[in-house]
Amino acid sequence: MTTMTRRGLLTTGAIGAGVLATPGIVRAQDTRTWRMVTSWPKNLPGPGVTAERLAKRITTASAGALTVKVHAAGEIVPALEVFDAVQSGTAHMAHTASFFWQGKLPASVFYTAIPFGLTAPEHAAWILHGGGQALWDELYAPAGIKPFMGGNTGMQMGGWFAKEINSLEDIKGLKMRMPGLGGAILSKLGGAPVSLPPGEIFGALQSGLVDAAEFLGPWSDMAQGFYRVAPYYYAPGFHEPNGTGECLVSAKAYGELPENLQAVVSDACAAENALSVAEADWMNGAALDTLVSEHGVKLRSYPAEVLDAAREAAEVVLDEAAAKDAMFAKTLASYRAAKTRLSAWTKTGTQSFLEARG
Amino acid sequence: MTTMTRRGLLTTGAIGAGVLATPGIVRAQDTRTWRMVTSWPKNLPGPGVTAERLAKRITTASAGALTVKVHAAGEIVPALEVFDAVQSGTAHMAHTASFFWQGKLPASVFYTAIPFGLTAPEHAAWILHGGGQALWDELYAPAGIKPFMGGNTGMQMGGWFAKEINSLEDIKGLKMRMPGLGGAILSKLGGAPVSLPPGEIFGALQSGLVDAAEFLGPWSDMAQGFYRVAPYYYAPGFHEPNGTGECLVSAKAYGELPENLQAVVSDACAAENALSVAEADWMNGAALDTLVSEHGVKLRSYPAEVLDAAREAAEVVLDEAAAKDAMFAKTLASYRAAKTRLSAWTKTGTQSFLEARG
Repeated sequence: MTTMTRRGLLTTGAIGAGVLATPGIVRAQDTRTWRMVTSWPKNLPGPGVTAERLAKRITTASAGALTVKVHAAGEIVPALEVFDAVQSGTAHMAHTASFFWQGKLPASVFYTAIPFGLTAPEHAAWILHGGGQALWDELYAPAGIKPFMGGNTGMQMGGWFAKEINSLEDIKGLKMRMPGLGGAILSKLGGAPVSLPPGEIFGALQSGLVDAAEFLGPWSDMAQGFYRVAPYYYAPGFHEPNGTGECLVSAKAYGELPENLQAVVSDACAAENALSVAEADWMNGAALDTLVSEHGVKLRSYPAEVLDAAREAAEVVLDEAAAKDAMFAKTLASYRAAKTRLSAWTKTGTQSFLEARG
Repeated sequence: MTTMTRRGLLTTGAIGAGVLATPGIVRAQDTRTWRMVTSWPKNLPGPGVTAERLAKRITTASAGALTVKVHAAGEIVPALEVFDAVQSGTAHMAHTASFFWQGKLPASVFYTAIPFGLTAPEHAAWILHGGGQALWDELYAPAGIKPFMGGNTGMQMGGWFAKEINSLEDIKGLKMRMPGLGGAILSKLGGAPVSLPPGEIFGALQSGLVDAAEFLGPWSDMAQGFYRVAPYYYAPGFHEPNGTGECLVSAKAYGELPENLQAVVSDACAAENALSVAEADWMNGAALDTLVSEHGVKLRSYPAEVLDAAREAAEVVLDEAAAKDAMFAKTLASYRAAKTRLSAWTKTGTQSFLEARG
C-alpha cells in the first residue's frame, strides 16, 4: 500500500503542474487523479483499448480536473481483484466485466449477458429505461460501488469445435470450455463444461483436453488462433448475445465530485460504450470474412434440436439460480419483463427487416 | 437579428452569475452561451426531448462554461431552416435530421437512413469506424458545419394502410405518404408517393386523399392516432431501418472551444444518441403491444413479392441518385462496402441468434 500511495501522490503532483499550463480552465487545487485498475492486459484489443480510451475521455473532457491513470491487470491488483480494489479504496475506479463477480454476487451476471437474453441494443434499453440501472446500483451499493456500462464486445459466437455437431447426441459427453450460465446449460444437455482462463484455451483445444471452446466473437477469437486447432465455428452465441463491460466507480469518490465531473464521467462511459460496440461489430465483420476465406474455417449453425434443448435448459438454469438468491430472483423478474417487451418489438422491427434485407 | 442578439446577451449575463456561485470550477469570463435551434416542436416526445437533454448534458458537464439554450422550431427560425441558421451564424448549433437537406445536398440522406441499408447499430459502426464520419464532415464542410450523431428513433415501421396489401398488384396506383428515397421506390413499384408534413397525415388518411402513410415507429405513430383511420400496420420499415438525428455545430464556434469543451460536446452527443435509441426501442415495445391489444391494430408483413421488388428498386434508385451527384456516388460506395461487411456479421451473429431465441 505504501508504494501505491506514493505512486498516487507522485501522479497527482505531475498532473497538477500540467493543469497549471492550461490557463483559465481549472485551478490546480481542484485537480484530482484517479487510479483505474482493469481486468485486461495493457492495450488488449477490445476491452484493454476501451479502458485506455475511457480514461483519456474523462481526462480530456475535464481539462485534467479529473485525470484518470490506467493500470493493467496485475500492475496494482490481479485481474479478478479489481472489484475488491474499488471497494477497499485501493483504486477509484475499475474497468472490467460483471460476470467475474458471480461467485459472491450471483445477480452480477445480468450485466454482462444472459443465455437467450437481450442483445446489446436491448440490454441498453433495459439498463437505461427499464429499471436495469437501479437494480445494478442496488446490487453493488453494499460494496460502495457505482456501476456504469463502459464498453461492449457485442454479440458472441457459439464456439470452436474439433468435430461437427449434428445432433443433441453429439453434445453428450462433450468437454467444452464454457463458463458460467452457458456451462450450466451445457451440463443439462449432457455435456461437460470445463473452466479455463483465456490463456489456456488454445493449448487445451490442441491437446484434446477439451473438444470445444467458446471465447468471444470473430475479432478476438481470430487473434487467439483457435481456428488452427478446431476448424468448426458455430453460431449463434446463444449463451452470450451481448458483451457489456462495466466501469466500476467508488461511490464515495463519485459522490465527492462536483456535478459537472459526475456528468463528465457518466457521458464518457456512455460515449465509450457506444464506440466500443460499434468497433466490435466493425472488426467482427472483417474477421469473420478472413476466418472463412483465408483460414478455411467451417462456419456452422447449431442444429435446431440443440438450440431447442438449450433454450429450455436456459430457463431452468435461471429459475434454479433465482431459487438460491433473492437478488437474482428480483433481477430475473425485471429482465424477463424487459425481454418480453423488447423482443416483441425486435421481432416486428429489426428481425423482419433483416429477413427482408436478405 | 437585434432581438436574437439581445436575447443572447441577456442569457449570457444570467448564466455568468450562476457560474460565479459555483466556486472554483470555471471563471465567469470563460463562459459561453450557445443557441441551439431545432426542427422539433418544444418537448416533442423523441427528438424534441432529446434536444433538450443534449443541451442540458453539455451545460452540466461544462459546469456552465458552455451553456446551451434550446429554441424550438419557429422560435428563431422555422423547422427546416436550422441548417442555414448554423451556416449563417444565427445559431451555434442545431438538432435536426439530415434527410431534410436532400434538396441541396443529396448525399445528406445517408446520415438518416437508406432503404434496405444499415440498422442503427450498423450505422454507428459505419460512422464511427468505417469512414462515415469523414464523409459526413466533408459534405457539410463547405457550409462551415460539423455534424454529430445526436439522437436516433431506431427502426421504423412500413406504414399504415386503409386496406390490406396482398400482392404487388395492390401497390399499383396506391397513393401513399412516403417521402424521399422510399417514395422513389414506391414510384418504381407503380405507386404514387405523396409528400405531406407530419401534421397533415392524419387528415389525408381520414379523407382518403392518401390510401396509406408511413411516419415513424409505434411510439410516435400511436401518438398521431393513425390507427383510428388506417387499421393495417405493415412491417418492416424497409425504407428506413434507422433514424439517426443529427446535431449540427458551427465549425467556427466548435474550433474556438478549448479541447475539453470540444470533448464535452462530442461525448454528450454520443451519450444522448445512445440514450435516445434505447428509449425508442423501449417505448416502441410497449406501444406496439398497446396498438394491437387495445386499439385493434392489424399487424401485417409486406408480401414477399413486394419486398423483393422494393429491394431491387432500392438499388436502382440509389444508382440513379449516384449518377446525378458525385458526392452521393462517393458516399454510396463507402456505404455499400460497409453494408457488405456489417450485414455478413449481423446475419451470422444477431440474426441467427434472434431466430434461435424465437
